[in-house]
Formats: sequence, structure tokens, C-alpha cells
Amino acid sequence: MNTTEITVLEEIELDNPIFIEALPGLGHVGKLAADHMIDELGATKFAEIYSPTFPPQVLVKEEGIIDNMLNELYYLKDVGEDNLDLILLVGNTQALSPEGQYLTCKEILEFVNQFDIDRIYTLGGMVTSPQPVENPKVFGAATCEENIELLKEAEVEIRSNDGGIVGASGLFLGLGIRQGIQGTCLMGETPGYFIDAEAAEALLLKLSLLLNFEINTDKLDERAEETRQMIAKAQQMEQDLINKANAGNADDLRYIG
Amino acid sequence: MNTTEITVLEEIELDNPIFIEALPGLGHVGKLAADHMIDELGATKFAEIYSPTFPPQVLVKEEGIIDNMLNELYYLKDVGEDNLDLILLVGNTQALSPEGQYLTCKEILEFVNQFDIDRIYTLGGMVTSPQPVENPKVFGAATCEENIELLKEAEVEIRSNDGGIVGASGLFLGLGIRQGIQGTCLMGETPGYFIDAEAAEALLLKLSLLLNFEINTDKLDERAEETRQMIAKAQQMEQDLINKANAGNADDLRYIG
Amino acid sequence: MNTTEITVLEEIELDNPIFIEALPGLGHVGKLAADHMIDELGATKFAEIYSPTFPPQVLVKEEGIIDNMLNELYYLKDVGEDNLDLILLVGNTQALSPEGQYLTCKEILEFVNQFDIDRIYTLGGMVTSPQPVENPKVFGAATCEENIELLKEAEVEIRSNDGGIVGASGLFLGLGIRQGIQGTCLMGETPGYFIDAEAAEALLLKLSLLLNFEINTDKLDERAEETRQMIAKAQQMEQDLINKANAGNADDLRYIG
Amino acid sequence: MNTTEITVLEEIELDNPIFIEALPGLGHVGKLAADHMIDELGATKFAEIYSPTFPPQVLVKEEGIIDNMLNELYYLKDVGEDNLDLILLVGNTQALSPEGQYLTCKEILEFVNQFDIDRIYTLGGMVTSPQPVENPKVFGAATCEENIELLKEAEVEIRSNDGGIVGASGLFLGLGIRQGIQGTCLMGETPGYFIDAEAAEALLLKLSLLLNFEINTDKLDERAEETRQMIAKAQQMEQDLINKANAGNADDLRYIG
Repeated sequence: MNTTEITVLEEIELDNPIFIEALPGLGHVGKLAADHMIDELGATKFAEIYSPTFPPQVLVKEEGIIDNMLNELYYLKDVGEDNLDLILLVGNTQALSPEGQYLTCKEILEFVNQFDIDRIYTLGGMVTSPQPVENPKVFGAATCEENIELLKEAEVEIRSNDGGIVGASGLFLGLGIRQGIQGTCLMGETPGYFIDAEAAEALLLKLSLLLNFEINTDKLDERAEETRQMIAKAQQMEQDLINKANAGNADDLRYIG
Repeated sequence: MNTTEITVLEEIELDNPIFIEALPGLGHVGKLAADHMIDELGATKFAEIYSPTFPPQVLVKEEGIIDNMLNELYYLKDVGEDNLDLILLVGNTQALSPEGQYLTCKEILEFVNQFDIDRIYTLGGMVTSPQPVENPKVFGAATCEENIELLKEAEVEIRSNDGGIVGASGLFLGLGIRQGIQGTCLMGETPGYFIDAEAAEALLLKLSLLLNFEINTDKLDERAEETRQMIAKAQQMEQDLINKANAGNADDLRYIG
Repeated sequence: MNTTEITVLEEIELDNPIFIEALPGLGHVGKLAADHMIDELGATKFAEIYSPTFPPQVLVKEEGIIDNMLNELYYLKDVGEDNLDLILLVGNTQALSPEGQYLTCKEILEFVNQFDIDRIYTLGGMVTSPQPVENPKVFGAATCEENIELLKEAEVEIRSNDGGIVGASGLFLGLGIRQGIQGTCLMGETPGYFIDAEAAEALLLKLSLLLNFEINTDKLDERAEETRQMIAKAQQMEQDLINKANAGNADDLRYIG
Repeated sequence: MNTTEITVLEEIELDNPIFIEALPGLGHVGKLAADHMIDELGATKFAEIYSPTFPPQVLVKEEGIIDNMLNELYYLKDVGEDNLDLILLVGNTQALSPEGQYLTCKEILEFVNQFDIDRIYTLGGMVTSPQPVENPKVFGAATCEENIELLKEAEVEIRSNDGGIVGASGLFLGLGIRQGIQGTCLMGETPGYFIDAEAAEALLLKLSLLLNFEINTDKLDERAEETRQMIAKAQQMEQDLINKANAGNADDLRYIG
């Protein structure tokens, strides 16, 4: 129970796939980009990941149907000009505790590396200013100079000496370094506090350039709008709840028999 | 020691029982409803659950007698028109840490599923407004459409796309999904910061409708009043303690030899 | 490493000893009382307890000498009219995390119960008002009615229905209940934010009455004064440190290579 | 995975080395001093330490190259007049959780003690006032009187009865006490909120006096300046991020699918 449970839905074979991580983060930039890729390019889910390191809750979706906190693995074969195989990691959460992050990322990487991962891309958002920017930039960092050169060719801005990459987007690259798998992080510029379709589009365009595939981004806005509505509703309820808790000390109820 | 300790008080046989979770939460709505069921329908305690994931404390009850933080399992046989067997999970606490929540819920579900659980109901409160409402609604969510239909027939309001169900009321349903056990969450509308007998009554009426049994709710108010007094006293003492700690930095005393 | 390390300093034999817990807590009431007993009655240290659940630090004592965070076990033989054997648990800290509290208390109780513990007393402080009180009361609670009666005979105030006893003073009693060892908690009335010699004296007098031994409390004030000075110095330094951290964000330095 | 991973880069032999800990802390005083020693005296890295107890992130260094959170072990042979062998522990982080601190320090000490450690020195900063001081003092504490005497001879100020030494600088000394290895802590006086080259210089001069070696400190200022710039940049980005999170509740985005 203390370890990640990976349920395989389909036995597949892949040819040195590229592993793309896009779990929820700042502005949902990476998640939105990857969900769109899955939809547009017709990726297939082949595994579900469940972990006691996730937040201890379930989600209420459309029509009152309950869903677990989950990560999911999708695959795509023969993508773009270079006929690349891809594995995408998406989901509705990341591990909650620092050690849970290390544990879960390590077990997921071990699982996907059975396919002999060629490279890792991690997708996220990066905040440069509180105001929304007109033409969001895409920032990058990588585990080796060779990948930095590729980023420069694709006109990705190189981050330099500027702190850390926190969470799964950082840890997968760090674990990759330890296992000799090279990796790159792409971050779309975003104010971070709303579902940012423009940053996701900018990110996707750079990724498609780097991996040499084509993707239609017309429906990205639509998808962002849907997510926005769902979150607005959830935030309203959580805010009400916090107000009440503060007003009446609801927490104190917890321990009394 | 790092796992849940379940002490069996009576060996029983049950016929595909329904598992009802009602641990302490918002407005104590679920707990109050289940404690009342246990009392009115004469349920029998058959197991006690003790865990290092509970808050590290004991409770002082009537006449200075000390009690452990515990969860308890009760059973009822041949309830209502459908002669249902029920297992009720109640107690004075839930696990404290996120991973403790996952661990404890999983171990409890494994234990009760030795009786081949038919369905899971989790009972809780839901905050919609800071003001007490006149006729509290009952909200619902479920793990499958079939149960959503049953909720609609019972005129339970369906939550939709509105965030999460946190803690044991969520996790038991999520664990159920993974084990092929269907489940439903019922939530009584409550401001959340007092022991809410009216929300508990509304909840109980819907549950009795769904499970087809009759229950007298006359004494619910009385029970709520008792609990209210006990909590008021405890909160007063905790508040004094917090005031002092803030005033004089009592915490700093802890580490000095 | 993840468990408590108990170093036995002397192999001893005891006759159904009474186990007295007095780790640091509110107003240091229990600790001060027990340290005084050890000194006045000439108790002998027979074991040291070290645990990764303690705060991750060491203490700087007199003349710059460094000491570990430790709990210690002392024994006394043939105390008072009833020739009681006693084990006292003292130290400079308690476990830091909730699960650490459960784990450490359980392992210590297992260790001392090799001597067939007769009863448990846990000593602590209790805050009733922010102002220092002239004649501090002693409050009590117990795991069975028999002990409550003894408390009443000794004119200890019985707490009733008023919340919890948090930390080691609560957990040892709760663990005792589970192992069939009866126990009593004595709490000296204290504002909680200074080293309270008067509360410790009141507590000691009740304990000596209950266990039927005599003890001179003249030096308690002196001992409290020493501890007070040591703590004042430590608090001043911590406050400076916090001020600086807030002013300059010293925490941010931690992760930069 | 739950334990420290130590990668040996070079098999070495050392003659009862002195173990010097200098992980990041207040004012980066210890780290700066040790990094300078490594540079000036030409120390060789012989092991890298990776742990799930470190913060769950990676660092972006020069030119966008990503680096793991790591601790590193360097050695020096025949240092100074006394021909001492030294092991230096440096890195970009310490363990994050209290139990992680105990675990990681214990495993590192076990590893380096294969060389039969003679003594331990831990290097850190100490805050005495919010204003920068002109001639920073060096404070000390030790596990035995013999070492206190050596500190006094070197005109190090002895801390006395003044609270704790938190983190690796404290724990290594405490673990040393338990294993019969004597140790000393040296702390450079610093306001704590900037990279303090002057405090590091003062610290280094005392250490070189105690260990009887010579070291040129001319480039310490330069090194401090570089680190300062890197941190200023990182702090700016983190602050922007915090502002945004507070403004727009970015955290709430995390759990929505």
C-alpha cells in the first residue's frame, strides 16, 4: 500500500519512446498542452497509476460521478516526420509530500523505462509577471548541452542560474540524470493563476517543432474554457468552506467523541 | 505498530452487508446520524480500530474517565423491508496525515470486505452558506450511474463537477471503485461549525428511504444538544490554551532540558 | 534507525514498579516535579532513550558542552510507607510528529513493562487562565473509576468531559488501557508560559499523598529559577533569529548551490 | 529508495581523517568556507549523496543545465603542519523533514566512518544581531571539555546554555557522541540573510588555526559575490511566484482534473 499501484490496461510495444510528463502545475500549462495532444493525435491510455501519496480525496465529475485521484499513461506511435513513439504522463494530481514526490516519480520512471526511454520532456508553466503577457514565451532547461543547443535552435529562452524546478517536472529530469537518460524541461510563460490556453499553445508549438510533428491548436481555447468553469465552481465552494471554518472553528469538531 | 490494529469483539456472520461510513466531519452530520441509528435500531459493536495515524492524544469523558481515540464497527441484521445487513463505521476521529488516511481506510475496507460488502454509503456534511438553512438539503454523488438514478428517485440533489470529497467519506468510495464495490456519498447541508441535528435528520430520512427502513428521529435534537455542550467546553479550554501559547511562547519551553 | 534506541546503563530488578511519565510540557510542571523527585529522593538513571522522532538538533549546555535530545529512565526502590518501586521517565524533549509520538511511547512502554508495571502516572500542566493563580489546583483524570475515587480522596479536581490530553501524558495512559495497565493523569494548574515551580509543588504534594511518601519541596523554587534563566537566554536568541529570517528571507538560502 | 544513495566516485584510503560538515545554513557561512577550502587546497570529490529526504526539485545552473539536489564528499590528504587527512561534506541542500535529517546524517556518518574518523567539525553561522557586524566573531561548542579548551586557546567564543544547534551541524555531533567520536561546532557571527564572506573568512581563520594549516582567503569575497547574484535572481522569481499564488489561489488548481 505504501507504494505506487500501476494498473496496466493494455500490453504494448514501443520503439525507444520519448517520455513526456505533464502533471498539473502552474497555470495548468503542461497539463492542458498534453491533454490536447492526447485528444488531437488520438493517444491511447495503457496504464493507470494510484498512490497513497496523492491527496486523500476523490473528485466529483459530471453528473455526480466520483473519480479517484489518478495519474494516467497514454501512448502514441509513429508521430510526425521522425516516426517517434511517445508516452504521455497526465492526471489530476501530483504526490502531496516531498518524499512522496521522490517515491512516486521513481516508480513511474522505472515502469516506463521498461520501454527503453530515449529522452524525457517535462512540461510546465513559469511565472514571470503577475500580469497576463500578450505573446507568452517558452522557457527551457536541460540535462546536457546538446539539448540546450536544440532548444536554442527552436528559439526557446534558456533559463540560467535561476533557482529550481519543483515537483514532478524537476524530479523526472533529476532521476533521468542518475540513470543516463537525457531530458528537457519546457515552461510556458503564465501568470499562473488561471488555466492558460495561450501559454499551452506556445508550449505545444515549441514541442511540435522539437519533435517534428504537426498539431492543430484550434480547440485549445475551448478546452481551457471548460476547465476554467469547473475550477471556478470548485474554488467558490472551497472558499465558502474556509470562511466557515475560520468563523466557527469547525476543525475543533474533529476530535470529540 | 505502523498499521491499524483491529480488535474483534464478536465473531459474526453477515449476508452481503452494506457498509456505512460516518466518521467525524463537517457539522458532525454523518456521525450524529449514524450514532442515532446505532441507538434507535440497537446496533451491536463487534470491533474496535486503533491506529498510530490518529491524533496523538486521549479524551477525557464523563467523570474524568480517559478514553482512546478509536474507530468502532457496529452491525445490524435484517434491517427494514429489504432485510438488509448493515455495518456502521463510527468513532471519535479520523487519521491525521494524508498517507495515514489512505492506509487506515484501506485496512478497514479489507477487514469489512471479509463479509462481502454489497455497497458502500459514506455520510457527511456539505457547506453551502455560512448561515444556517431552514430546510437543509441532502446532496449526493456516486461511483456509477445506477446509484445516481437511485439518488434522483429519492430526491437527493446531485453534486456535479464541483471539486472533491476529502477524507474517509471520499477515500472509501475511491477504494471501492478499485475493488469493484459500488458506493454513494450522502451529504447534509450544514453551516459546518456546530453540531447540526437538522442536517443529520435530513440525511437520515434520505438514507432510510434509500435503504427502505423506518427510524424515529425524535431524540436527535437531544443528542445534538449533549454533544454541543461537551464541545463548547472543550473549545473554551483549547482557546485559553492558544491564547496563552501566543502570549508567552509556551512552545519554546518544549526543547529545553 | 527508524525506531527508538534504548541504551541500558544498569541491569536492575524492580518489584511491580509504578511508571511515572514527566516529559516537557505546559509550564514544565511535570518535568520540574519529576526532576525534583529524582534529586531529593536520589533516583538512579538506568537507561537512555534516543529517537529519530525527536527534534533534529542538539543542545548547548553549561560551558559549551553539547548534549543530545534524550529521554531518560530513573528508578527508585522502597519509596515511602508502602515501599513502592518507581520508574521515572524524564528528558529534554518529546517526539515531534504525531506518528512519532505513538511509536516512541509504545516502544518505551514495552521496555518498562518488562518490570511488570503496576500502574501509570503521567504528570503535566493544565491552563485554566492566562493570569498566574495564587494557589494552583491539581486536576486529574484516570483510566478507571477506582483511580478516580483515589483522586477524590486526595482532593484532586476531576476533569470531566473537557477535551483531550495531548502527547506523551495522554498516549501512555491510552496504551495502558489497551494492555490492561491502569493509569492516572495529574495536571498542575498553570498559565503555561513560564517554568511554574508553584504548580510543580502542588502537583508533587498530591503525588506524594497518593503514593504515600514524603518529599521536601524547599529547593523547587531554586530549580525553577535556574531553568527560567536558561530558557530566557535561548528564547532571546531564537527571537533574534526569527526577526532576521523574516527581514531577509534567510530560508531562501537553503536550496541554492 | 527510502534511504540515502551514496555513489562512490573514487576508492580512497585515508589516515584517521577529520570529518568536516558544511551544508547550507544561516548566511551560508559554513558552506562558503568549505567551498573555498576545496578550491584553494585542491580537494577531490570522491562520493555523491542523493536522498528522497532532500527537497523535491532540481536546480537550473549556468546555461540552463539542470542539476540534482546533492550532497558531496571531498577529501584532502596531508593538510598543514600536522599532515591531516580531511573529508569535507558540502552540497546544495539538507534533508527537509526532521526524521529525514536523522536518517540522512546517520547514513552519511556510517559511510565516512569506514575511514575511522578521528574528530568531527561542523561549520555554520550564528545570528547575534540583525545588523551586519564589523569584525564577526566565531562561536564554538563541543562534545567534550578537551575540545572546549582547544577552542579557548584559539580565542573562539564559547556558547553556553543557550539553546540548540539545529540540523546537520547539530546532528552529526550528537551522532558522534553516541559513537564515541568527539566533535566541535564552529559558527561565524552573521546577520544570516545574505551570503556572508566576512563571517566565512573569520570561520576559516579559526579552523586553520585549530587544524594548523594555511589558507589564502583573498578570493572569498569574489565567491560570495557570485553566489549573491545567483540567489538574488532566484529570490526575485520565487517572490513573484508567491505574489501570484496569493493573488489568484494558484494552489487550488492542483487537484482538478
